[in-house]
Amino acid sequence: MSYISILTDFGGPVGVMEGVMWNIAPDAQISHIAWDVSPQNVLEGSLVLDRQGWFYPDGTVHVVVIDPGVGTDRRPIAAKIGTHYFVGPDNGVFTAVYQRAEKHGWPIKVVHTNKPEYWLPEVSEIFHGRDIFSPVGAHLAAGVPLEDLGEEIDDAVRIDLPLPERLEDNTVVGQITMVWGHLGNVIVNIHRDDVAHLDKFRVRLCGVEITEIVRTFGDRETGTIVALFGSSHYLNVAVVNGSAREVMHPKVGDKVEVIPV
Amino acid sequence: MSYISILTDFGGPVGVMEGVMWNIAPDAQISHIAWDVSPQNVLEGSLVLDRQGWFYPDGTVHVVVIDPGVGTDRRPIAAKIGTHYFVGPDNGVFTAVYQRAEKHGWPIKVVHTNKPEYWLPEVSEIFHGRDIFSPVGAHLAAGVPLEDLGEEIDDAVRIDLPLPERLEDNTVVGQITMVWGHLGNVIVNIHRDDVAHLDKFRVRLCGVEITEIVRTFGDRETGTIVALFGSSHYLNVAVVNGSAREVMHPKVGDKVEVIPV
Amino acid sequence: MSYISILTDFGGPVGVMEGVMWNIAPDAQISHIAWDVSPQNVLEGSLVLDRQGWFYPDGTVHVVVIDPGVGTDRRPIAAKIGTHYFVGPDNGVFTAVYQRAEKHGWPIKVVHTNKPEYWLPEVSEIFHGRDIFSPVGAHLAAGVPLEDLGEEIDDAVRIDLPLPERLEDNTVVGQITMVWGHLGNVIVNIHRDDVAHLDKFRVRLCGVEITEIVRTFGDRETGTIVALFGSSHYLNVAVVNGSAREVMHPKVGDKVEVIPV
Repeated sequence: MSYISILTDFGGPVGVMEGVMWNIAPDAQISHIAWDVSPQNVLEGSLVLDRQGWFYPDGTVHVVVIDPGVGTDRRPIAAKIGTHYFVGPDNGVFTAVYQRAEKHGWPIKVVHTNKPEYWLPEVSEIFHGRDIFSPVGAHLAAGVPLEDLGEEIDDAVRIDLPLPERLEDNTVVGQITMVWGHLGNVIVNIHRDDVAHLDKFRVRLCGVEITEIVRTFGDRETGTIVALFGSSHYLNVAVVNGSAREVMHPKVGDKVEVIPV
Repeated sequence: MSYISILTDFGGPVGVMEGVMWNIAPDAQISHIAWDVSPQNVLEGSLVLDRQGWFYPDGTVHVVVIDPGVGTDRRPIAAKIGTHYFVGPDNGVFTAVYQRAEKHGWPIKVVHTNKPEYWLPEVSEIFHGRDIFSPVGAHLAAGVPLEDLGEEIDDAVRIDLPLPERLEDNTVVGQITMVWGHLGNVIVNIHRDDVAHLDKFRVRLCGVEITEIVRTFGDRETGTIVALFGSSHYLNVAVVNGSAREVMHPKVGDKVEVIPV
Repeated sequence: MSYISILTDFGGPVGVMEGVMWNIAPDAQISHIAWDVSPQNVLEGSLVLDRQGWFYPDGTVHVVVIDPGVGTDRRPIAAKIGTHYFVGPDNGVFTAVYQRAEKHGWPIKVVHTNKPEYWLPEVSEIFHGRDIFSPVGAHLAAGVPLEDLGEEIDDAVRIDLPLPERLEDNTVVGQITMVWGHLGNVIVNIHRDDVAHLDKFRVRLCGVEITEIVRTFGDRETGTIVALFGSSHYLNVAVVNGSAREVMHPKVGDKVEVIPV
């Protein structure tokens, strides 16, 4: 049994990628991590991938299609990072997984998957998700060794992952990195450890100020805007039984301040 | 081959639950019943589950994450009800399946799944869908007996499922229980049998009055608002080849009257 | 291993169809081609199916539920076309696959699937997707021969697929046939070959004029409206790193002109 995940900004399942994959890896179980990454937002895609991908079984192949540069000379790449495989454009979308691997000392091997014999016979200029990344990912799932897919490279593109900044007055300034789901729950690039120096603090974002941190949603009344440290220990902001999207209009990149009181 | 269904109010697939499950039940086939239950609407979730879940194969494990009380002391539970398994929060979301089982005399066994050895090693306060319900459901799918997951309980929470009321003038008053899909087809808690005493009637909801019941959509012209008894024998209201959502702005809980003429 | 694809206009996965199918074809791998075909748009459904379906493995069963006539006397049909199977309403939604098969000389066999022993025991008037098409599709996937499902017919319904028109001044007039994804990328029924007689041209649609054809999105600046020939060689219009849906408000059926310069 082999596993493939798909992560895109397509807004829907685009099942044709599954069709392509099953031609090559007939027994692959395929799962969509998400298809609602903000359009062409490589940063958000990188963070979603890193926070979700590692929950899949060892050996899973993660095919990522957040690819504003499709059809240009940006390289298609495939990688083995720790015990998982990754396929997608070399535009920095794997930065967060590279960094996690380095932090933990996991091996990283990246190849430029430039061999057309592992692609669909006809490759379009605008849908490498179907024509290159899906077949390459399926070949990995079917057991083709990473080395066979192309030449190893050591200059894979990385993007800057925005880190929170600590000001002189101990205020921590970060930003919104994801807004997800029906309700628009807000995820911020401020880790629990980034504010460990603060006893008490307020959180300010999107014109709203939150004066306390709760443990979970049910700790407050319906309609309350709450801040808490989420399932990955990053700051989350949500509306209890309501929609942060409607109430706060959050956007990826919006400034978030954690202010000592 | 084992089967797991997932029912949530997340607004998207949240594939990470599939990743978690496959670590434990490597061959599980996983299907999303729906992820667009109205946010934290336990009543709607209960009805969707009961109307859709039984169509899956015997032995299917249904993992339900409509969980406004996540992280509070509401219990996580697992159950065998008839020939199917269910996992989720003990907040009443299984009320409709309990009631169906009782009506048919099917056995019901519910356990408090409080053994951390069947959860993920690290459990967050806000995503028990990933950290508790997915692994517990996958253990059931992989063959762990229900009894091993926790102690049997006999006080599982139930909610009131709103029943239609018959007034003195024989009018039947019910409410909208689901609004689904692109088009916002409206499903009402009035069963065909609830209006069997009426020869002819009008239907009034959302400021609209419908003067006749049709057999199917194609019986009327495009754009007509029609009422009919749907695939589960409950009253449905829709716009032929159009969008009830746009035309009628229906909301779960809106009053629906069936008035004798 | 057998494969089933599902194509609908439901706006969501409607997993109950998968549940129904697994009762009959326990090992079927199931993929959603898409569920966001414009509501009851048989033309769009036909084109999506033909452009995506053939990428699936030989023997895949494609179950199509774009069915404004559900419950009327339109026939349910099943077909073997080339090396793939198709199941759905006889309303013309298979026109594009019939035409492709004829162009390539692939065999076409269509049957009227009117045998209730291959349906669910209880059939509603409004959800043949669940009650007829899913079980029939699953029986095909499980190996039931097409001939057993019903009598062969030779008068399957076809719709007119709008073809582009060449005016006296060599302008080619077509229309938008799909608007898809988050971003509303526009696909037009004008093939690369339809404008082969033109050296240089402008494209006019939705009140916008585009003065050049690019090779891929990345060839222009963010925010530029670009026209290009897409992955199936049809004219595509998109906004680089932006949303054609927001900028252009495209709708299926809107006129598109390719004008010589």
